[in-house]
Amino acid sequence: MTGASMTVETISRHRCFGGIQGIHRHVSAETGTPMRFSVFVPPQAEHGPVPVLWFLSGLTCTEENFTVKAGAQRVAAELGLMLVAPDTSPRGDGVPDDPQGAYDFGLGAGFYVDAVQDPWARHYRMYSYITRELPQVLASAFPVDRTRQGISGHSMGGHGALTIALKNPGRFRSVSAFAPIAAPMACPWGEKALGRYLGPDRRDWRAYDACALIEDGHRLEALLVDQGGADQFLETQLRPDLLEAACAGAGIPLTLRRQPGYDHSYYFIASFMEDHLRWHAARLTERG
Amino acid sequence: MTGASMTVETISRHRCFGGIQGIHRHVSAETGTPMRFSVFVPPQAEHGPVPVLWFLSGLTCTEENFTVKAGAQRVAAELGLMLVAPDTSPRGDGVPDDPQGAYDFGLGAGFYVDAVQDPWARHYRMYSYITRELPQVLASAFPVDRTRQGISGHSMGGHGALTIALKNPGRFRSVSAFAPIAAPMACPWGEKALGRYLGPDRRDWRAYDACALIEDGHRLEALLVDQGGADQFLETQLRPDLLEAACAGAGIPLTLRRQPGYDHSYYFIASFMEDHLRWHAARLTERG
Repeated sequence: MTGASMTVETISRHRCFGGIQGIHRHVSAETGTPMRFSVFVPPQAEHGPVPVLWFLSGLTCTEENFTVKAGAQRVAAELGLMLVAPDTSPRGDGVPDDPQGAYDFGLGAGFYVDAVQDPWARHYRMYSYITRELPQVLASAFPVDRTRQGISGHSMGGHGALTIALKNPGRFRSVSAFAPIAAPMACPWGEKALGRYLGPDRRDWRAYDACALIEDGHRLEALLVDQGGADQFLETQLRPDLLEAACAGAGIPLTLRRQPGYDHSYYFIASFMEDHLRWHAARLTERG
Repeated sequence: MTGASMTVETISRHRCFGGIQGIHRHVSAETGTPMRFSVFVPPQAEHGPVPVLWFLSGLTCTEENFTVKAGAQRVAAELGLMLVAPDTSPRGDGVPDDPQGAYDFGLGAGFYVDAVQDPWARHYRMYSYITRELPQVLASAFPVDRTRQGISGHSMGGHGALTIALKNPGRFRSVSAFAPIAAPMACPWGEKALGRYLGPDRRDWRAYDACALIEDGHRLEALLVDQGGADQFLETQLRPDLLEAACAGAGIPLTLRRQPGYDHSYYFIASFMEDHLRWHAARLTERG
């Protein structure tokens, strides 16, 4: 990484529930583009490093959706959690997009993978960006306790949270997801994205599929998932049934809550955000 | 009003905190345009009519800003409050806008007045729309207890809430505002808007200026106002000091809370929304 990538520019900064909600920008060495991310710093950070919850967003989102719509800052301020919400893909001139401009691939749809196929491989390195570069950038600029990290996300970002946690054992003390794409190898969104970013050999896709990772021996200590019962993508794209089976087969304690009447929107996320934040905080503030 | 104006079309509908968050559209006889409005129906409405809190938004906003950013549904669901957020101006082909496209007049900036000057008078009838037409439309389609209504708003919408409450004694049991334009006759935003909508005679402006209305004998039983101390518009546009003086002179119990470090954004509103909702609910659920 070059030194330039550690320079963080603050785009906006607002007092919020006694803490500070900011939007920041830096030049990413991984994606080769400027990248934005959102950070909520709780009031407790005035007294020392605080635990951090990463929230990965879904298709079409930027760092702003979670920040504006999830209503997470209130409880994070109470619990002393830093919240970090990255963007969902590289952006800018020279970053290739879906040739048809579809919403489910390319811009806003990085799927948290390191692409290996051209023309995607150069910029679409969201896995390394989220797991390696951004944590260093964050720690360089914010009072984060890197020994106490949790991760969550929504839809494509739920897929990101699950796969990143599974692939980085010991890094995240707490993992949850809202309506995750739980088995991308078994749904149209995932088949399209993994096929284009990674190529036609489906064996290469297993490194980015939560269910396949579990089948291949990766483990989580516990997992909380909320899934709306009226989610239009439930049966075709999300497949919590496959995650449930994979966790059962591997002995992973999964708390899967099916919430009748809730859809795929941020109104669903906001409704259950407090439960997730308290679930993470309980694990992030344990001694050990 | 024509029968057509009572037809409410539902544009979106989401389960949210056990209630329903919807965006709706109808053809307004007052503005002569289609108008959108947001309604949160709390779960308590399944058992009968519920009290309603009107929230009027600020410059550039639509019905969506409060709905998405304020985080009000959680507490409204707990307290059994319906939330209604109208748009801030007529919109559409044929609705004139500020000739320079400025954000502080015309589209998104109706100032909750009935314009009398051409070309504004035909469509810019937000006072009558909010006080007469929309309440009827709401009652025709939602289980609202019209004897228990509160009103609040932000910035231009705080001005709207104060003036509408002052001009309609007995209708609203509770009134609050976030960073209201408290004395539009004494600030650039207000002078521009009232001058253009109402004409050059400043005596005509007094009917839409909270401080002037109080000076002219209008009263409120009580008023809660939150004002960010780091609000960039505080001294030039908002003038809570003039509201404080007017209330003191008239014996109106004003709770004016200056919140250090907070700005004019929805992060400020969200931070204190719960206090306002509980303040309204305490007055809307009283017997009487």
